[in-house]
Amino acid sequence: MEKVNLAKQLVEWRRDFHQYPETGFLEMRTASILASILADLGFDLQLGKEVMSDHHCMGKPDEESTKKHLQWAMTNGANKNYIEYFSGGYTGVVATLDTKKEGPTIAYRFDMDALDINESDDGDHYPNLECFKSKIPDKMHACGHDAHMSIGLGLATLLTANKDNLCGKIKLIFQPAEEGTRGAKSMVQANVVADVDYLVASHIGTGVPHNHFVAANNGFLATTKLDISFNGMASHAGSRPEEGKNALLAAASAALNIYAIPRHSEGTTRVNVGELHAGTGRNIIANQAKLKVETRGETSSINDYVKDQVESIVAGAATMYQIDYDIEVVGEGLSCRCSTDLASILNECAQESSAIAESFIENNDSAGSEDATYFMEAVQKNGGLATYCIFGTELAAGHHNEKFDINEDTLLPAVEILYSSVVKLCEKE
Amino acid sequence: MEKVNLAKQLVEWRRDFHQYPETGFLEMRTASILASILADLGFDLQLGKEVMSDHHCMGKPDEESTKKHLQWAMTNGANKNYIEYFSGGYTGVVATLDTKKEGPTIAYRFDMDALDINESDDGDHYPNLECFKSKIPDKMHACGHDAHMSIGLGLATLLTANKDNLCGKIKLIFQPAEEGTRGAKSMVQANVVADVDYLVASHIGTGVPHNHFVAANNGFLATTKLDISFNGMASHAGSRPEEGKNALLAAASAALNIYAIPRHSEGTTRVNVGELHAGTGRNIIANQAKLKVETRGETSSINDYVKDQVESIVAGAATMYQIDYDIEVVGEGLSCRCSTDLASILNECAQESSAIAESFIENNDSAGSEDATYFMEAVQKNGGLATYCIFGTELAAGHHNEKFDINEDTLLPAVEILYSSVVKLCEKE
Amino acid sequence: MEKVNLAKQLVEWRRDFHQYPETGFLEMRTASILASILADLGFDLQLGKEVMSDHHCMGKPDEESTKKHLQWAMTNGANKNYIEYFSGGYTGVVATLDTKKEGPTIAYRFDMDALDINESDDGDHYPNLECFKSKIPDKMHACGHDAHMSIGLGLATLLTANKDNLCGKIKLIFQPAEEGTRGAKSMVQANVVADVDYLVASHIGTGVPHNHFVAANNGFLATTKLDISFNGMASHAGSRPEEGKNALLAAASAALNIYAIPRHSEGTTRVNVGELHAGTGRNIIANQAKLKVETRGETSSINDYVKDQVESIVAGAATMYQIDYDIEVVGEGLSCRCSTDLASILNECAQESSAIAESFIENNDSAGSEDATYFMEAVQKNGGLATYCIFGTELAAGHHNEKFDINEDTLLPAVEILYSSVVKLCEKE
Amino acid sequence: MEKVNLAKQLVEWRRDFHQYPETGFLEMRTASILASILADLGFDLQLGKEVMSDHHCMGKPDEESTKKHLQWAMTNGANKNYIEYFSGGYTGVVATLDTKKEGPTIAYRFDMDALDINESDDGDHYPNLECFKSKIPDKMHACGHDAHMSIGLGLATLLTANKDNLCGKIKLIFQPAEEGTRGAKSMVQANVVADVDYLVASHIGTGVPHNHFVAANNGFLATTKLDISFNGMASHAGSRPEEGKNALLAAASAALNIYAIPRHSEGTTRVNVGELHAGTGRNIIANQAKLKVETRGETSSINDYVKDQVESIVAGAATMYQIDYDIEVVGEGLSCRCSTDLASILNECAQESSAIAESFIENNDSAGSEDATYFMEAVQKNGGLATYCIFGTELAAGHHNEKFDINEDTLLPAVEILYSSVVKLCEKE
Repeated sequence: MEKVNLAKQLVEWRRDFHQYPETGFLEMRTASILASILADLGFDLQLGKEVMSDHHCMGKPDEESTKKHLQWAMTNGANKNYIEYFSGGYTGVVATLDTKKEGPTIAYRFDMDALDINESDDGDHYPNLECFKSKIPDKMHACGHDAHMSIGLGLATLLTANKDNLCGKIKLIFQPAEEGTRGAKSMVQANVVADVDYLVASHIGTGVPHNHFVAANNGFLATTKLDISFNGMASHAGSRPEEGKNALLAAASAALNIYAIPRHSEGTTRVNVGELHAGTGRNIIANQAKLKVETRGETSSINDYVKDQVESIVAGAATMYQIDYDIEVVGEGLSCRCSTDLASILNECAQESSAIAESFIENNDSAGSEDATYFMEAVQKNGGLATYCIFGTELAAGHHNEKFDINEDTLLPAVEILYSSVVKLCEKE
Repeated sequence: MEKVNLAKQLVEWRRDFHQYPETGFLEMRTASILASILADLGFDLQLGKEVMSDHHCMGKPDEESTKKHLQWAMTNGANKNYIEYFSGGYTGVVATLDTKKEGPTIAYRFDMDALDINESDDGDHYPNLECFKSKIPDKMHACGHDAHMSIGLGLATLLTANKDNLCGKIKLIFQPAEEGTRGAKSMVQANVVADVDYLVASHIGTGVPHNHFVAANNGFLATTKLDISFNGMASHAGSRPEEGKNALLAAASAALNIYAIPRHSEGTTRVNVGELHAGTGRNIIANQAKLKVETRGETSSINDYVKDQVESIVAGAATMYQIDYDIEVVGEGLSCRCSTDLASILNECAQESSAIAESFIENNDSAGSEDATYFMEAVQKNGGLATYCIFGTELAAGHHNEKFDINEDTLLPAVEILYSSVVKLCEKE
Repeated sequence: MEKVNLAKQLVEWRRDFHQYPETGFLEMRTASILASILADLGFDLQLGKEVMSDHHCMGKPDEESTKKHLQWAMTNGANKNYIEYFSGGYTGVVATLDTKKEGPTIAYRFDMDALDINESDDGDHYPNLECFKSKIPDKMHACGHDAHMSIGLGLATLLTANKDNLCGKIKLIFQPAEEGTRGAKSMVQANVVADVDYLVASHIGTGVPHNHFVAANNGFLATTKLDISFNGMASHAGSRPEEGKNALLAAASAALNIYAIPRHSEGTTRVNVGELHAGTGRNIIANQAKLKVETRGETSSINDYVKDQVESIVAGAATMYQIDYDIEVVGEGLSCRCSTDLASILNECAQESSAIAESFIENNDSAGSEDATYFMEAVQKNGGLATYCIFGTELAAGHHNEKFDINEDTLLPAVEILYSSVVKLCEKE
Repeated sequence: MEKVNLAKQLVEWRRDFHQYPETGFLEMRTASILASILADLGFDLQLGKEVMSDHHCMGKPDEESTKKHLQWAMTNGANKNYIEYFSGGYTGVVATLDTKKEGPTIAYRFDMDALDINESDDGDHYPNLECFKSKIPDKMHACGHDAHMSIGLGLATLLTANKDNLCGKIKLIFQPAEEGTRGAKSMVQANVVADVDYLVASHIGTGVPHNHFVAANNGFLATTKLDISFNGMASHAGSRPEEGKNALLAAASAALNIYAIPRHSEGTTRVNVGELHAGTGRNIIANQAKLKVETRGETSSINDYVKDQVESIVAGAATMYQIDYDIEVVGEGLSCRCSTDLASILNECAQESSAIAESFIENNDSAGSEDATYFMEAVQKNGGLATYCIFGTELAAGHHNEKFDINEDTLLPAVEILYSSVVKLCEKE
């Protein structure tokens, strides 16, 4: 395919995904289309439960929502040949190109899920002008994962076209449910990267300027997302106050004490109780309370420290009010440091690209949380190398904003940098 | 009308109301039917805003809900001749019979509203067996106000039939929104009882056995219902924690400290935070929190003490977090003591009734809260007498239960007792 | 002894005790003098550990304080013949007069301890004017127990003088450590009232006017006094905040939640955290916190309900902060109802007294807490009768005030009423 | 003076100060001896209130303690000629050597105060072996300020001896009350450094190894020390709970919410409630509570942010309980960055010293708080240069430990480095 045509194709793919955003563990239409294209390009596929450990999926929607979404996907363009692999909400796709020549196994990881955001109706919002706005109310690709998948397909296209010049195996990993850091762990536990020597994860935007590239984005905070519930006993607050077991008070006490968790001298921490919902009526002692909590730490062990404190506090609050509680981990991300040797190679690739004005080996600013860190840690533990790159781009508005949009000119250079990293890694052998 | 026919009519009225339950300030169908019947019986009517002070309605639904319900009422049997009086959600009805003879002004107060409860589907639930179950999902007459209105109409019927034997004026007051103690104050402020010498409020059930009667039910706790909101500032909990103004923490602190309000040495108190809802997302510092609070006191002044503490605590919690707050009074009831002289008369009437096995002058057990106390206080302050009676009945299940039901045999004796109190009060002059 | 002389003697005894106040479990001088006088009067004595169960003494001072006080007592007038019985802080005295005639066993209970209050220096304070002010700084008989003991000795005097007219056995029980409701339980557990048919406890003052008498003072609240400590881990708050286990925060959380314990629908409750002391330095995370807590309930079971909640809350607060805790019961009183038959007899005695203007069978106002209730409950459980009387008197200032003083004219009538109750109970047989 | 003699003298001075430790604003004996020696060496003196702004002394002891300590100093070796300057607790000493030659004004700052620590009795504690242990129970030079003053006097000795080779003015500033960061501000506000071109502050130990030197110790956290009190209303918790205004609960609420102050994204924060003392009796609603609080921030503005939150929380807690409160600032330190140009000169001096094995220009580790930062900020604001050096030494135990001790071999090299910095700064002109 010529460069011009590939550039057009990248935009087309991205805009199709953009119009049909699907949230975590429900990327059924998306996955079926990815699978179909990758199969056509000659990749071997592993799909659904084959690449995801059921037990390690975090914050997965319930069966009913999953079934309902399947119906939606069937009538909204899902590829019928592949949809069944994903029907239970296991929407991971791993596509492998085996060159049959000796060489390393190199993996590229892309994320697939959209957000519960209603895309802007404003006339000046580019997706409106160009008619590729989300067709689904309250769902939107507002973080750029549509672009990530398009880049992944573009990379697949170049790999197929140049297969004879390559060596080893190249794995393209399409991961569900990055938002809330929920999906990566299940793919790692399914051994998706057990054989991987080099892993490259990447993201578009995140504040890096257009035509700039970061080869090693360090500074992700480890994080845990917790859904906490307290289950007490209701009672009429006027006539039988002593018979109630007050879940609202337990939750209020827990919230206050969770915020009071001490700072850690070895690095940044964060903790937030973002939501608290308790009680069913003014004159009833509340028997039910739910909290949505998030912890972060500069390292995984600092995050574990914060998480342990949360667990003690919740157990204590339940003891105080003689009630039951439940803590569900609905998301988790690690801290991780990129492998300098691999980052150097990516940096070279970027410096050689005519589209890149400036390339940086390393960025250490704290930059939220990511579950690509699970893949990175697993590869590094096996003696492999891993890095996390950023493709700078102009953003119409920040990530997770209803007017988020990227500059589509970023897509082709991103594909080319990743492709040339494959070439360099093969040469290195 | 003969006794047998009146008994039948009472059941018919009650069952009609039962099938079309309307909640507080939305009793439009109900009020229009009451107005029509009372007009036909020869009563003078004062309706809607004429008998309700807009400013003193508490916890009134918003305009949109009110309009929507008006549509519902129009298509569900409302009387078109009267509906417009009630269209704004001012659903009070005062019907006066002027005997044109010198004598006292005697008022009887009945409440009209239903509850947000879904009536039981069980086969053994009597309204199902007899096919008069609520036709509206999640709405139910589960406190007996349908029976109260039926008794009111029965009383009107007897009064009209015997008008020549009576003296003075008799006022029948049908009050909206007793649940949550929200409606009475607005009628009192509209001077509905300014001219009243004797006021009789009444309730069916409340644990008093069938064929028993209580002439003076003291022991209502004064109460205030408060909707409290905190308005802070949202911020990303990971990247800008210092920019948030945390409404969830303010609410949690307020809740804990509200429960810690001291007991009062002069009488019973109660306080409850029945609901707390705060926050919009796990990783956002919550900018919004809402609490539903209820205070009670053995006397109005004890209740005011508790309410004052709540207000200080809420103001303090807002100061702590540098945020705004709002406290809305959405319901209020007073404490009150029945006038013994009037209770004695009611007691006599009951003892003379062949249907009543036992009649008690007085019951001092604490019995929840009631806003009929506003009418009682106003009449007593003017030098009049007031009492609150209970008509005992068998209950299929407790008040506010989805299987609540009364024994309809209670209706006719209730009407007769009230009617004979009019006779006795006229004789007394 | 003549009446006039007895009256003088009563004042003399009272003033001696008043000048040498001793607090709970340290009434060594006091007890030794009581023992000596009662022995001289011909009573059989049981002393110290014979009448107190070590295991059931609550809030007893430590060994060192006890030893130190022994030295003080030895040099401040203690009777050397008896002091050794009380040297370990077991200061109970039971004196029995056995008439050797068949008849009931009748017990009278008096309390002995003073308070940690510095008696007023004011010129107009009567004990100053008459030179019998406390000789001990920060110790004072500010509750009238000095008078109680004087009455007890007066009763002993009359009993001895009239022994031939009496029957059965009469036991005079002098109890340590009533303040803080600490001493009675240990005497009951030592079986001091196992053989008692009638028990009369009494108090002077408490708001009852001079020359008035109450035969049955009901309404004592059951109570428990708890010393709570949290033991965490200190850490430098600046350099190692994560290594601290914060006892101050555990205590603050516990205090807030203890005050939030719900009211009880079946009767009055109280709860107070009177003291909280935590931490040793501004920049150290506090490893130690202590709370002084008091619960009360209209019945013993309501008090137990409150106490159980406190225990859960404390356990929960410790769990929250991963620290240890300790709860020590340092005082406990029961609720109790006086036996009407015995109260009637006392009431008769009072009505027959020329010194008493008005006598009341019963007073049900809530009146603090008392551990005489342990004796009363034990006697009633065995089928005996018990009551608690009040001798009204003028008070210069309220109980526990630094200017507290009684009218000494109350002493003789009190002795006479108690004595005539013995006579009546003997006659009854 | 020869080197050997100076070394001996340094030890002698240090051991004298060590035996007579005086805490902040009470360094009367210490100051009088410093003044006497410096006067003998030919320095001009400014003393007491001349060099301290009364209004800006923080956490100064009350008048009675100050008077009492004066008596102690008078009988424990204070120099009678100077003691009166310091008698009010204004114990600052500024000694100036004017060379009468043109040149810069160079200042050296030393701190004088000891700690409330009881020095170890252990046989192996070096001050015991050598018989120079603190003579004062519960007071100890456990931070090395005794060594600092000895170094200051050594520097004065060399300056006097070599006056002819120097230019400009040299000011030696002896500051009271560094512990708790309380004394520096008052000297700065008294314009002690208004004319200073170069300021060198220094500390011994702090973890830097023996024979090592740090020329610029950055990383001090800004800090504020707050004494907070709540003043409520006492009431008997059993009989009149509603009349209390609970200061204990206000303090507990404040403590919990103070710990919950959010992290700051721009730098490290710390907050601690080190002490909480509330209440006077178990059955009394506490009318008094006191908290000792400390905030820290990576910059002064971050610390101000934390302090502002504390103030809002305290105001809110008082509002909650309708009580008064007071916040007193009893200590404050700034963040500060050393002037690189001045640090380079000190670094050269150290590198030229034969006693120094390794010298570091800069150390950025966070290292507690210091109020020398007030002097540094004032000099830098006037266009001058300032730095903070560390003289490494072996520590027998950490700072503020009862077994703290330094290696006295550090004293002479420290004096020499400071002296040679004067020489270099004169040469620079």
